This record gives sequence, C-alpha cells and structure tokens, in this order.
Amino acid sequence: MSKSNSAGHNAQEPILLAEQTAAAMYSRDAALKLIGIRLMTIRPGYALLSMVVRPDMVNAHHICHGGFLFTLADSAFAYACNSYNRNTVASACHIDFLSPAREGEELEAECEERSLAGRTGVYDTTIRDRKGQVIALFRGKSYRIAGEVITGLEAEDSRHRPTPNSRIEGNPQ
Amino acid sequence: MSKSNSAGHNAQEPILLAEQTAAAMYSRDAALKLIGIRLMTIRPGYALLSMVVRPDMVNAHHICHGGFLFTLADSAFAYACNSYNRNTVASACHIDFLSPAREGEELEAECEERSLAGRTGVYDTTIRDRKGQVIALFRGKSYRIAGEVITGLEAEDSRHRPTPNSRIEGNPQ
Amino acid sequence: MSKSNSAGHNAQEPILLAEQTAAAMYSRDAALKLIGIRLMTIRPGYALLSMVVRPDMVNAHHICHGGFLFTLADSAFAYACNSYNRNTVASACHIDFLSPAREGEELEAECEERSLAGRTGVYDTTIRDRKGQVIALFRGKSYRIAGEVITGLEAEDSRHRPTPNSRIEGNPQ
Amino acid sequence: MSKSNSAGHNAQEPILLAEQTAAAMYSRDAALKLIGIRLMTIRPGYALLSMVVRPDMVNAHHICHGGFLFTLADSAFAYACNSYNRNTVASACHIDFLSPAREGEELEAECEERSLAGRTGVYDTTIRDRKGQVIALFRGKSYRIAGEVITGLEAEDSRHRPTPNSRIEGNPQ
Repeated sequence: MSKSNSAGHNAQEPILLAEQTAAAMYSRDAALKLIGIRLMTIRPGYALLSMVVRPDMVNAHHICHGGFLFTLADSAFAYACNSYNRNTVASACHIDFLSPAREGEELEAECEERSLAGRTGVYDTTIRDRKGQVIALFRGKSYRIAGEVITGLEAEDSRHRPTPNSRIEGNPQ
Repeated sequence: MSKSNSAGHNAQEPILLAEQTAAAMYSRDAALKLIGIRLMTIRPGYALLSMVVRPDMVNAHHICHGGFLFTLADSAFAYACNSYNRNTVASACHIDFLSPAREGEELEAECEERSLAGRTGVYDTTIRDRKGQVIALFRGKSYRIAGEVITGLEAEDSRHRPTPNSRIEGNPQ
Repeated sequence: MSKSNSAGHNAQEPILLAEQTAAAMYSRDAALKLIGIRLMTIRPGYALLSMVVRPDMVNAHHICHGGFLFTLADSAFAYACNSYNRNTVASACHIDFLSPAREGEELEAECEERSLAGRTGVYDTTIRDRKGQVIALFRGKSYRIAGEVITGLEAEDSRHRPTPNSRIEGNPQ
Repeated sequence: MSKSNSAGHNAQEPILLAEQTAAAMYSRDAALKLIGIRLMTIRPGYALLSMVVRPDMVNAHHICHGGFLFTLADSAFAYACNSYNRNTVASACHIDFLSPAREGEELEAECEERSLAGRTGVYDTTIRDRKGQVIALFRGKSYRIAGEVITGLEAEDSRHRPTPNSRIEGNPQ
C-alpha cells in the first residue's frame, strides 16, 4: 500500500488510489452486479470494464438493449472520473450506437479522459466486441461535487502528499 | 379491435396499432422486466412509461444509476418511435441529468415526437418524479430499418387502409 | 418603461426586462450582424430569430454551412437564456441536421426553455424554413455566471420587486 | 501528382487525394473565407484548421461567439470526413465549451476519425489555443451521400487502383 511506503511519493500512488476508489465504489454498487459488469483495469482518469450480453438484456429486436450498452459505457465513465477519490457525477452523456451487440457477446468498454479543468471533465468511452469492432461511442461530461469516495483517505494522504490543486480550488465541502 | 370493424377507417386505428405494437414489443422485452419498467400510455409517436427506483438500482452515491435513468428514457423513446409498427432503432441519444432520483421514488418518462421525415426521427423524453420535478431530459435519433414489429399486420391492414407514405418511400424490405 | 410605473409589479415587467436585455446584447454583438441574424420576438426564456441564407454562407455542397445553422440556433438559445438579465453562457450544445437549407431561404429559429433550476438550464431551438419544415433541432445547456447583462438594472429593480431566488442562491458576483 | 505516376499505387495517393479534395472544397467555400478559417494539414480522415478570433466574432460577453467555435470545429470535421473524395454531410454534432476564447487569440481545430463503417462515421474535433489549452471538444456524426467532391477523379483513379469497398457498397449514385 502506498501509505506504508516511508517516502509516500512514488509514482504508483495515483494508480493505487484509483484502484482503492474503484474497489470501494464497486462494493456499494448493486446496479453493476445486477447487469454483470466487471472491472478489468482502473487507472487515474481511465477505466476498462466488461460485460456479457445476457438473454435478459436483449430487446424486442433481439439485440442488446441500448440502455445496457449505455449503462456499461456510463459505468466506465463513472469509474474513470471518480478515480481521483473525489465524488464526481455525470451531468450529461451522449452515445452513438454504431453496430448491434447480440446475445452472448462479450463487450469491453474503455474510458479515457479527454479534458479535466476545475470541476468539469470530459470522458470518452468506446465499446468494442471481441473482434475489436466498435459497437458504440460515448462521451460524458462530469462534475465534481463535495466529498470523497473513500472518506478520510484523502485527508490522511494529504499529510504526506500535498495536492496543490485542492488548495487553489478550495475545499469542495 | 380495428380490424373487426367493418368500416376499418376510424380515427382510433393508429392508436390501436400503437397499442398492439407496444404489447408485442413488451412481450419479447426481458430487459424492461429486469428493471421493472411499466407501460402507461402508448399513442402514435408517444409513450409514457414508469419505473420505481429499487434498492438494486442505486449507485455508489446512493442515487439511481444514470444507466437506469437512461434505460427508462430510451425505452420510452423505443416505444414511441416503433408505434407505427415499423422496425425502428436508435442511432444516437443524448441525456442531461438535472436532478438526482433517490431510492423508492417513482419516475415517469414521457416521450414525444419532435420530427419524423423519411427514415429518420427525433424524439424527446422527459423524466419527472411524482412532484413533477424534471430529473432528466433525453433526446434520441431514430432510424427505420426493414421489417415490421408485428409481421403481417401491416399487410393485412393495408387492404383496408391505404398508407400513402409507404408507397412514396417504397417497401423498406 | 416598467421602472417609471408607480406600481412596478405588473405582469409585463419580465417581458420588458427580456426585451431590454436583448437590445443591450444585440448592440454589442458584432457576430450576429456579420451573418445577418435578426431578433423577432424575445420573452422570458424564449427567443425567435431569423436569418436569410446568403451566397457567402453556403458550403461546398451548395447548402447552408452547418456552422451558420448552429450559430442561428445557438443565438436564439443565448437570447432566451439571458432574458432574465443574468449573465448566462452555453456549456454544451447538440444539433441534429434534418434537412438542408438552400441559398436565399429565410429561416426562423425558435428557442424555448425546457428546464431551469439553480444555475443550469436546458433550452431547445427548432430551425424551420418558411414552409414550416424542420431544418435542424438544437438543444443547449446553459450555466449562469456572475454579473448581469445590463449592470445595475437588476439592483434598481430590486428596490421595488424582491427576487427571493437571488437571496437563496446568493449574489453570483 | 499521383495520376501522372506510372505506378499509381504508392502510399501517398490517399494523402494526395485528401489534399486535392480539400483544395476543391476550399475553392467553393465562401463561408470559411467569411470567418477566416485556414487549412493547415489534411490527411485521410484527418484535418487541422486554424482561425483567429476577430473583433467581429466576439459576442456580448466579449468572448468568441460559440457559433464560430462550432463553425471552426465543424469545418475541420467536414474536411476530415470528405477527405476520401466521397460527398459526406453532417447528420448531428455535439460540442462542449470548456474554456472561453478571447479576441485576438489564434485557435487550432484538430479532427480525427473515430469510426467509419458503411456510410456512417464519427469524428472528434479538439479546439486548442496556442498554449495547448482545450477550448472546446466536438463530436460529429457523418453520413455519406451520393457523388464525389471532385467529380470524375475517382472514376479515373479506379482504372488504376481498384477500390474494393466501393464494389461491396455499390455506387452511391
């Protein structure tokens, strides 16, 4: 763990913080479990999630309901934009459906940060099937609200590792 | 039923067609049942659906997962744009999240047609809580593909009720 | 003028404020004049603007450049969301291009408020040609920033007409 | 020029085609000249354009009118998605305004192809100022229509260079 490191400034800290934050979010997130979304890789500003299209997730046209594709893309977005342990919510999302996803297919959703300034961020998620074909492209706008995902963790860290940004912007709480 | 009516040209026919189409879609739509979405009112180019935010639908911030709000709005869109019994899919959707929806709340999603020309339509869904507060605004773009939701129904109807539009645009199949 | 009215509480005040605000914005807005956009009707949360597609506004496909259609729709949005004399900017916009607009056509852009809560609003603009055909559908998200369009006007009004909302939310400056 | 090359199969051909197409588009595009947009780099599925914020392009808040930022981003999109010499139009666009652009600033808009399948493509444009700060993020959806930007060029090329895709999809005209 980063905090047991005497120096407390190594490059892995943000990655560990992102992983800890994701684990804390996942433990409370009944919705992800309901539709079988799994976390694959979490890094600062980045998330890779996967999901299998189950029989109870297809719509009347026999393809994966757009709502579940959105939920997968939106979840990758949520884990990417909360990866700094600051509570962050979606303010708007846009999704382009490019190719249908059929029952039984395994999908991956990869989310990358495109911009982060002040409280506002923009994140892009790409959903692909196993052959690499793009199923959907998603863009989400995030807004940081008060509080931390893992309360107290940031305070403890900040004794060791100054976070200049938080001083400039003030305490969101 | 409209088809048993000897005249077969009354104003209620499009409403009955919309209701029949919705019933057929719903019977095949495991996804809606998974998250407890109910059909309230279906008319041509219009749909009103409802959903209760269950404990397994809230996210790590203790509010309804955006994916389920999207699924509710997108479902209203699907029922509105398929209400003419022509197979129609979403090509893109945009959602603005305006106010959080909490566990136990009952939400309504009302979808209205804004534009329909050729194969392309634009539909707006508004999600409100019981007090009328707007939870989210959704806009979906639809694209009509080949086929009918209830195969053969249109062919049978067309003996009684000419549909000039379908002649102009040709048979999508 | 509403302020010279001894009562100072009549229903027309918000309309007059919207018109005064629009006139002040227009006087400073070189961009609108550059592409010939005219104000037709301004009301609280509403704007109707018009524009003729000039020869220097068509693109390589001989139809009105999407950028100018966007500018027309976005301008209607700007006048609608600033109609309360509070400085308000666009945070995001989405436009669906539904039908081309050709050289010489006169277009109208009508913007209506869909939601306004706190500092955030959602506005829809519809662009139509003279025959009423929908050319484009636009949705803009607004964010209120510090300051007023006409500085001092609100302060003067507020001696006569309390505005509870501004107290609740505090002075944005 | 690629066509005078006896082999006619070198790797630079798509780049030359993109450049020729852009030059042809630009020569007919009065709108770009009206607001001073310049072409910097054009490649297949890629475009880099620049624009200086002139005094007649600022709005009532003294910052570049969103319509001109959109026009810059949308133009980069147009040159990127038409770079294969196939007539392609925008069906929908989304823009997030992240930071204001002030009078006198020089902006760059870089557009990259995110997806292209059949007639539909998705392109992302990033607008940055000279310091590299992101001013706006834009996403456009393209739709290929009948015809070529430079009529006859493709037909002439196809004698030398088979284009399998065009056979699979048929002649759009």
